[in-house]
Amino acid sequence: MAARRRSATMADVARVAEVSRTTVSFVLNDRPGSAIPEETRRKVLAAAKTVGYRPNAGARALAKRRTGILGMVTEIVTGPFAAATVVGAQRRAAQLGRTIFIMASTGEPELDKQAFATMLEHRVEGIIYATGSHRAVHLPQEAAELPTVLVHCFDADTDIPAVLPDEEQAGVLATRALADAGHRRIGLIELDPAIPAAVGRRRGYERILSECGVPVDESLIVVGGATAQGGYLAARRLLEDHQPPTAIFCANDRMAMGAYDAIKERGLSVGRDIAVVGVDNQEIVAEGLRPGLTTVALPFESLGRYGVDALDAMANGKEVPRQQFMDCALVARQSV
Amino acid sequence: MAARRRSATMADVARVAEVSRTTVSFVLNDRPGSAIPEETRRKVLAAAKTVGYRPNAGARALAKRRTGILGMVTEIVTGPFAAATVVGAQRRAAQLGRTIFIMASTGEPELDKQAFATMLEHRVEGIIYATGSHRAVHLPQEAAELPTVLVHCFDADTDIPAVLPDEEQAGVLATRALADAGHRRIGLIELDPAIPAAVGRRRGYERILSECGVPVDESLIVVGGATAQGGYLAARRLLEDHQPPTAIFCANDRMAMGAYDAIKERGLSVGRDIAVVGVDNQEIVAEGLRPGLTTVALPFESLGRYGVDALDAMANGKEVPRQQFMDCALVARQSV
Repeated sequence: MAARRRSATMADVARVAEVSRTTVSFVLNDRPGSAIPEETRRKVLAAAKTVGYRPNAGARALAKRRTGILGMVTEIVTGPFAAATVVGAQRRAAQLGRTIFIMASTGEPELDKQAFATMLEHRVEGIIYATGSHRAVHLPQEAAELPTVLVHCFDADTDIPAVLPDEEQAGVLATRALADAGHRRIGLIELDPAIPAAVGRRRGYERILSECGVPVDESLIVVGGATAQGGYLAARRLLEDHQPPTAIFCANDRMAMGAYDAIKERGLSVGRDIAVVGVDNQEIVAEGLRPGLTTVALPFESLGRYGVDALDAMANGKEVPRQQFMDCALVARQSV
Repeated sequence: MAARRRSATMADVARVAEVSRTTVSFVLNDRPGSAIPEETRRKVLAAAKTVGYRPNAGARALAKRRTGILGMVTEIVTGPFAAATVVGAQRRAAQLGRTIFIMASTGEPELDKQAFATMLEHRVEGIIYATGSHRAVHLPQEAAELPTVLVHCFDADTDIPAVLPDEEQAGVLATRALADAGHRRIGLIELDPAIPAAVGRRRGYERILSECGVPVDESLIVVGGATAQGGYLAARRLLEDHQPPTAIFCANDRMAMGAYDAIKERGLSVGRDIAVVGVDNQEIVAEGLRPGLTTVALPFESLGRYGVDALDAMANGKEVPRQQFMDCALVARQSV
């Protein structure tokens, strides 16, 4: 290892500024109630810069009784989604002059409990709990001890504020892209119908059909689960129908990946013969497919930013809505 | 918001234990050099449990002059890879009774500098810097102020220890899977030849060819870059050859995704007519493709665990190798 520089201490600052260590401490810790002449303050700050003094965040927090730190417990193991949430939260926190202390969640209750306890011990001022999938969660009881915001999830048993993607609007955007291209016989490959994303996306699909005066045809709705294999099998069923759809709304990109294979195996062309739209804008899939997949992006970065803003509002005693929904966006490629 | 419980204080503990606040502080902060009778200690700990006292990590750190916190600055924005590194590091840290304070990196030097400065202010005892791709990095000068370990990257200008996947072994595993299935005319779709992963994986490919007594045929080696589109175009070139390969080693899964499309467009079957192997085990791709892609998994969770162990060793004054390489693993599916 290279030799490491010794960190400068308050004593170093005091020596250069020719003041007492206590004066340095009062100035650098910005301790309230201490009356230090402005000239002395400036001298201390200049000396701190000269010797390269780095403030001790822990000591300052104790002095000010505030740490400025926000905590974030997030599932980054389950997919690329939470990454954008983390980046959004961190960017917003930086704008507000706050630090985010992130811990990875695996969704296991015992580990979440430990994560919350660790955050509390480090005196974070609030916690963002963010999941990889839109679902109900049950937070550890530690969450009652400080401001908490749920991102991409909700807790039906408490009034902890939550911010969620508008799943119905995702369904509206996807189905409208197909309807606008002239399609009226539109198949739907659903996620597991029990999950909130499935309910919302199907509601959006039905709304657009209704706007077009097209009755819902249950034979055009098939559950694909969530995987490419499920999407492949579901698309095969739709295409084997005596009157197959001319377009398919796949409730996620992975199922669209499987639907592409089913369409191509029948000698049909995606886009020209059968239009396909997905949801997620999972770039590795949506950009990698041939032709590129038109899909709906969920607002992960905005969800993360909102989480920080909500904690900040709560810290300032402001009301935060119990559920906030954020808009999705269509990403057009070549599959419609 | 639900009403939040007031946090228990040391004064609460002192009242229940019927001892002084100073005694409570000595016991709970585990301050060295204080001689508290074992019975009193037990009484204080029991009282702390009764009132639900939560230690203040910042205060304890100041008392002990150690925070126990490790920092991790990591690119989680670039893909799913770093997620496993984070999880590995966090699991290992939990086993060692340490907390990891994670900040997301975007690779921008100014933000990395801020992240290191924030970590230093919070008195982390060491920093893991982890990237999404295997590459050279230049750490901010703040890295010289405390023990630092590089994960999935290296700094050629310093002796900061690094842990890296053994890219050559990844190439060996992939090519050997094809050679073991009887293939001798094996194409290679390369990453950008300038990057370390490309160099190592090609070296592994050439090593297995040499072991099989097969000369390297430059007409079988095509650069695909990194994307599905690049893989598609590269595979088309290989398949249009007057003597096309019977197997293709794609240096990542995304290029294999494109190669599948090129193979299928020629009316050939992946696995039966042309064997394909990838690298990355990016599950959304490798499991989603038809047939499932045989590929090589990089050791991300182990890299993360090693990062924590290396910092721990450095904190205890032990030597850590300048570069440590970790083994990859073949994940067999149906494409060979």
